[in-house]
Amino acid sequence: MASKDKFIESFKPLVAELVAYLESVNMPTEAVAWYKQNLEHNCVGGKLNRGLSVIDTLRVLKGVDELDEETYRKASILGWSVELLQAFFLVADDMMDDSKTRRGQPCWYLMPGVGNIAINDAFMLESAIFFLLKKHFRQDKHYVDLLELFHEVTFQTELGQMLDLLTAPEDKVDLSKFSLEKHSFIVIYKTAFYSFYLPVALAMYMADKAAPQDLKQAEDILVPLGEYFQVQDDYLDCYGDPNVTGKIGTDILDNKCGWLINKALQLASKEQRQVLDDNYGQKNDVCEARVKQVFKDLNVAQAYLDYEEQTVGKIRERIAQVDESRGVKKEVFEVFLKKIYKRQK
Amino acid sequence: MASKDKFIESFKPLVAELVAYLESVNMPTEAVAWYKQNLEHNCVGGKLNRGLSVIDTLRVLKGVDELDEETYRKASILGWSVELLQAFFLVADDMMDDSKTRRGQPCWYLMPGVGNIAINDAFMLESAIFFLLKKHFRQDKHYVDLLELFHEVTFQTELGQMLDLLTAPEDKVDLSKFSLEKHSFIVIYKTAFYSFYLPVALAMYMADKAAPQDLKQAEDILVPLGEYFQVQDDYLDCYGDPNVTGKIGTDILDNKCGWLINKALQLASKEQRQVLDDNYGQKNDVCEARVKQVFKDLNVAQAYLDYEEQTVGKIRERIAQVDESRGVKKEVFEVFLKKIYKRQK
Repeated sequence: MASKDKFIESFKPLVAELVAYLESVNMPTEAVAWYKQNLEHNCVGGKLNRGLSVIDTLRVLKGVDELDEETYRKASILGWSVELLQAFFLVADDMMDDSKTRRGQPCWYLMPGVGNIAINDAFMLESAIFFLLKKHFRQDKHYVDLLELFHEVTFQTELGQMLDLLTAPEDKVDLSKFSLEKHSFIVIYKTAFYSFYLPVALAMYMADKAAPQDLKQAEDILVPLGEYFQVQDDYLDCYGDPNVTGKIGTDILDNKCGWLINKALQLASKEQRQVLDDNYGQKNDVCEARVKQVFKDLNVAQAYLDYEEQTVGKIRERIAQVDESRGVKKEVFEVFLKKIYKRQK
Repeated sequence: MASKDKFIESFKPLVAELVAYLESVNMPTEAVAWYKQNLEHNCVGGKLNRGLSVIDTLRVLKGVDELDEETYRKASILGWSVELLQAFFLVADDMMDDSKTRRGQPCWYLMPGVGNIAINDAFMLESAIFFLLKKHFRQDKHYVDLLELFHEVTFQTELGQMLDLLTAPEDKVDLSKFSLEKHSFIVIYKTAFYSFYLPVALAMYMADKAAPQDLKQAEDILVPLGEYFQVQDDYLDCYGDPNVTGKIGTDILDNKCGWLINKALQLASKEQRQVLDDNYGQKNDVCEARVKQVFKDLNVAQAYLDYEEQTVGKIRERIAQVDESRGVKKEVFEVFLKKIYKRQK
């Protein structure tokens, strides 16, 4: 696993380049400082799994323990581009979800003096991606592919976010809008593409091992893997150990369109459905407990464990069938699956 | 001048392509309808000057009265891309400025059921640009130039918006933050690049008359022209005839960092400065009248007219010096200037 500290260190010259650009156009100092703060507050402080997986994937594809300095530098720029993309989404998602904290800090829009300026700040995190790609990859034979990949994955993520917002507005509970099919669309589009497919596809381009059929092989494994990851997240929100996960789940209180409620809706009797309709998404512990009781009666936790075995079985099958002849390696996907399977947090 | 009706008609197949894409990935129908509504509400209904100027500029560059059908089709896609970019900015700006109406309709975020979902909707207007460019310009020799141009102008506009938001927050008046230099930066970055330079640069690429030195010639004229346009906007906000402009100015009430207040700050005595400090940006007609009296005492309206003559003189000089040898034409810029000079609305 790539060193997180080294990766964080590699962000500094990128921030410096963006700052230098603003200075070069004579942007007043207080605005330069604001952008620097925006970049640092919103990109650093998390687990950085997505950025680091660009580097890890490239190591596997190249079959080396350590990337040489120049390759690491370029891979880190792609890794930080994924983190910038995520920061762009999260700054906005937190506003749309009315969230309070993120990574143990106040959300950016809740920081003193920020408020709705955060909308433009989110835009500027996205713009940083294309500034950095132009600066460092303009001469690369895959430059256009990289641009298009970011455009496409960005659009996909926005599609997932749109459906999520329309299906599960926090303030208006209507479980008739929910379904396992919609849940699947939401998590694939909102999470799987940018969190799982994007970092691997970027590493494949860097390794020049990104034939269309190989990108397809990667997508066919990483999208279900990302979906599984998010379903697991929904499971841990309710059944994880807060001492291990570090957080107390609020999906039921927040009317989230998660896997558990959708599974419960599929299995519920008319009476159980009524209990769910009356109690899901209410900001109220008693209601939450009633929903959890229905989950228990329906054995939703076991249904998840069955789903997990079935899904992981399918993913393993696909990994086993990977055609490595053009340089893609099964190990890329095995590494991801190993990190995720039966995770406790 | 290109027909507005024909241009509006050319938006329909583009909306249809975006809708077809969402349908092709099995996006649920209510979400497809939402996106369609987002596109139509936010892109149509305005003057469409920016989009139309792509078409007008291309006609001048090609020296024809009418573009052939296929050329018109492609030019209209670039024109709508500019309009989509503007829609992306305006949906967000209206939220950040707490605006109520836009083009005689409620702002998108104030439409029933929208609210903060408008943030993601803004993102999806931007994504439409790159979806359309890929679909229609992927084989074009200037495809990468088009992508980079949109990236760069987007970043510039965001930089202008950032400085504007930091300099003139609506709820906290501090005129010591204002200056004519900052005003110049704000209007050039926030307005001139995307409204004036971008449409012309796009038409130049389409005409294959976009040598770096010609883009530079265009920028050196269109950026000052765009700055002048915005200064004029600030002037009309205070001194325009509401029967002609169709709106009653609120810049003084809203603590806007406009040209007039910056000019007044430059000219004001200590006593006049105190009046401005105490009365600018207060939501109060009496305060507004006091500010207007200072403007009158300082003869700010005349200062604007002097600025106008001086600026237009400089722009005319630059137009006269344009090197047409590679195909750029003075007429492109003359058309713009003619539309703007001494406009009443």
